[in-house]
Amino acid sequence: MRCEHDRIEDVRLHDRVVTAEEAASWIKDGMTLGLSGFTRAGDVKAVPTALVKRVENGERLKVNVFTGASLGSDVDKMFAEAGLVNKRLPFQADPFMRRKINQGEHLFVDHHLSHTAELLRGNVIEKVDYAILEAISITAEGLIIPTTSIGNSLSFAESAKAVIIEINLAQSLLLKGLHDLYSPDKQGKRKPIPLTEVHDRIGTIGIPIDVEKVKGIVFTNQTDSPSTIVQPDKETKVMADHLLHFFREEVATGRLTKNLAPLQSGIGSVANAVLHGMVNSEFENLEIYSEVLQDVVFDLMDANKVRMASCCSITLSEARMQEVFNNFERYRNKLIMRPQEISNHPEIIRRLGLLSINTALEFDIYGNVNSTHVAGTKMMNGIGGSGDFARNARVAIFVTKSIAKNGTISSVVPFASHIDHTEHDVDILVTEQGYADLRGLAPRERAPLIIENCAHPMYRKQLWNYYKEAIKGGGQTPHNLEKAMSWHVSYTKQGTMQELIGQD
Amino acid sequence: MRCEHDRIEDVRLHDRVVTAEEAASWIKDGMTLGLSGFTRAGDVKAVPTALVKRVENGERLKVNVFTGASLGSDVDKMFAEAGLVNKRLPFQADPFMRRKINQGEHLFVDHHLSHTAELLRGNVIEKVDYAILEAISITAEGLIIPTTSIGNSLSFAESAKAVIIEINLAQSLLLKGLHDLYSPDKQGKRKPIPLTEVHDRIGTIGIPIDVEKVKGIVFTNQTDSPSTIVQPDKETKVMADHLLHFFREEVATGRLTKNLAPLQSGIGSVANAVLHGMVNSEFENLEIYSEVLQDVVFDLMDANKVRMASCCSITLSEARMQEVFNNFERYRNKLIMRPQEISNHPEIIRRLGLLSINTALEFDIYGNVNSTHVAGTKMMNGIGGSGDFARNARVAIFVTKSIAKNGTISSVVPFASHIDHTEHDVDILVTEQGYADLRGLAPRERAPLIIENCAHPMYRKQLWNYYKEAIKGGGQTPHNLEKAMSWHVSYTKQGTMQELIGQD
Repeated sequence: MRCEHDRIEDVRLHDRVVTAEEAASWIKDGMTLGLSGFTRAGDVKAVPTALVKRVENGERLKVNVFTGASLGSDVDKMFAEAGLVNKRLPFQADPFMRRKINQGEHLFVDHHLSHTAELLRGNVIEKVDYAILEAISITAEGLIIPTTSIGNSLSFAESAKAVIIEINLAQSLLLKGLHDLYSPDKQGKRKPIPLTEVHDRIGTIGIPIDVEKVKGIVFTNQTDSPSTIVQPDKETKVMADHLLHFFREEVATGRLTKNLAPLQSGIGSVANAVLHGMVNSEFENLEIYSEVLQDVVFDLMDANKVRMASCCSITLSEARMQEVFNNFERYRNKLIMRPQEISNHPEIIRRLGLLSINTALEFDIYGNVNSTHVAGTKMMNGIGGSGDFARNARVAIFVTKSIAKNGTISSVVPFASHIDHTEHDVDILVTEQGYADLRGLAPRERAPLIIENCAHPMYRKQLWNYYKEAIKGGGQTPHNLEKAMSWHVSYTKQGTMQELIGQD
Repeated sequence: MRCEHDRIEDVRLHDRVVTAEEAASWIKDGMTLGLSGFTRAGDVKAVPTALVKRVENGERLKVNVFTGASLGSDVDKMFAEAGLVNKRLPFQADPFMRRKINQGEHLFVDHHLSHTAELLRGNVIEKVDYAILEAISITAEGLIIPTTSIGNSLSFAESAKAVIIEINLAQSLLLKGLHDLYSPDKQGKRKPIPLTEVHDRIGTIGIPIDVEKVKGIVFTNQTDSPSTIVQPDKETKVMADHLLHFFREEVATGRLTKNLAPLQSGIGSVANAVLHGMVNSEFENLEIYSEVLQDVVFDLMDANKVRMASCCSITLSEARMQEVFNNFERYRNKLIMRPQEISNHPEIIRRLGLLSINTALEFDIYGNVNSTHVAGTKMMNGIGGSGDFARNARVAIFVTKSIAKNGTISSVVPFASHIDHTEHDVDILVTEQGYADLRGLAPRERAPLIIENCAHPMYRKQLWNYYKEAIKGGGQTPHNLEKAMSWHVSYTKQGTMQELIGQD
């Protein structure tokens, strides 16, 4: 136990060490849990597993599960399988949980990731009964030092009635000092958030906690789940080239310099691949102000392209995780980690003027983007931070391949079957076909550009046909509402969006 | 001319006085004009009229017209009739111009009102050739003192190659000192906006201008066009009561106090009527942080309910305009006027935690709101500031009557035919039937609440039928895409959204 107590410098807490089973036994049916964890990083591992065991042993138990974003360690899967969840928010990415959500077996609230902390602070959503937070250590002053993500942990610690801490011995102690915990006051009592540069430190290195609220401390020793991103392919490389071309044009017009502006990049393989295109580009001295740092940011650091990267989570592939944490001193002074309320805060996003790159599921000919719902109904993961960023960024970029499922689905459609980002919030659309710069354009200017630059050739004529027919009816945003959703209906019924007659 | 020169304290500018016709003669085909004016207040009147005359006299002339928001003095109507417009942004509200836009005869870009200044500063949209700004006077230091609106005037003055000033002798000199002009630096070079209270003064009382850029000064003597709002009726009074009920519940739960939080209210009769319900309520010491101050804010001031009101425009009915400006000393110390970039800035809206009330055209059973497009295609006015406010407010409230056109249209539909505000950004929906509090609810919780609390009884069964059928297909957001737009199609084809068979 010597080693373990080294991690609890606050002696007042030495008597709080318990087993995961004991900690899990405190949780009652109907409670709301606030779990650390953001995109498979820094999630609590032992207490959730022990909780699932209780259900497997026959107990009836349903709880609300609030997190930063998606969890690793199969926690969401286990929770969903055990039927343990009443309400889940604000994001998830587990296939099994997704199925349960779409079957209506538990509720899922799809928040902007910057909003959860505000809603808790304002006492608008359920109060957190237990915050369960992963840490590398607790300082003598009672600061909880988070691990590979911060997410909503600060907010959960503030609003929870009680706190359980999982000290994970497998997480690198070198993470200490990287975190910057800052919580705005209540709305109306609040000062400006004093962050004006990506590297600014505005808070504390850990989560300040009322020691009385710490009910238990559990020790674990288990690495994060590796990220599941796939490597760049031919098409994502082409997309990266289009984006680089756009950035070069911005530099040529004087809107940007070769340092660009702080970059935000959403999670996922496409966004990762697109950033990858910058490794061998002329752009340098880059700054990242994002939620998740994926492999590519460390590749960019290795290529000496990144000056500073701010995030609320570090999520790496298995190979990269070992390399990065074994050579962490190489990256340490270029990293800063923040609560997701700050990484995603509209005030900061607008002030810094981010270049924001996020993945779309589909978009329509006027630039409305669907990030979440397959065929308008089935939840994929959630809006995540894409709305926080797109609305307030200097340039809001959405990327997707122009077709899916062997061409039976066009990602460019007449009318997006679900809208997460309206035409007002979408600046640049990128597919492997090209990009459309929608800034300052009216809908009738946007449609031809999107069809010609972004749609796959196999769908262009069909889109033109829709648009030409729609325009006969007039309007700011011409549509034929009878046919607006017909592509999605056609896919459901016939397995393809392609018209079989009159096709190009 | 003595009186006129009193209004130009900067002697360097005395030689710039010209006729409107001369000023208008400088404008060339293809130019971009930045006109003062926001919601019929503070618009320039003489130069636009002289410009129209040139076209009536046979000249070919097309310009881009950028403003704060809608114009009075029939300027938009005259421009549209003369075919003078190439591109118009970011808002308009003239029936004739609306028709031209929907016929595709000129382009209309429907921006968030906080975005135009940012896009100009970032050199993203067309550079303004002439800023044409209404003023009450020019100070000895060369500050242009605006009149009844600020809108985008500061931004236009900064970005324009040349400036024409219309000094309007009909506007009250008592307005001087009310304005607070503040312009953020470029993104990335910017400090926090130092506004933490509604009454904070952070800028100058006028628009600082490079005297060399002032090409002409025109004198006018014409009052603003009165607002066109209609008085509260039985239904809007009921809606006001629902909203008061909601506010009382918020006070009861401790989320708000009797002073509430700074209120934002959109333009229009419904929003005006809803605020009117507060005149005889227990709420007091209110603060307003809004775009437009309509009649009701002065009624609230007369009732001693308002401590401070910040705006970017004052737009009054004919009767109220006279009363207010004849007794302006009564209101003066409770008023402050700002650029729309500041009145609508996400940083400030989120910091102050506004209660935001805006008008919807329609919304769907999941809370997606259409503010702009009739039947998904025809532009009404524009999104205005509703998106700036809804996304960042403490509580985003949308109000509308549950039916329109004698019940042939339901404002609550299965799928909004155009989406300006997504489910992520909409908190409270109010109709004369009641209100739905959507905060923290999943889509499957929202639909029943919206149908029962907000839809008109004549459409409830039809909405339930849609929802029950949709839910069989599963999904986070159940829909039957084949029927999602069928209500709008039915209205177009049969003149009603009502199903004639199987009706309640």
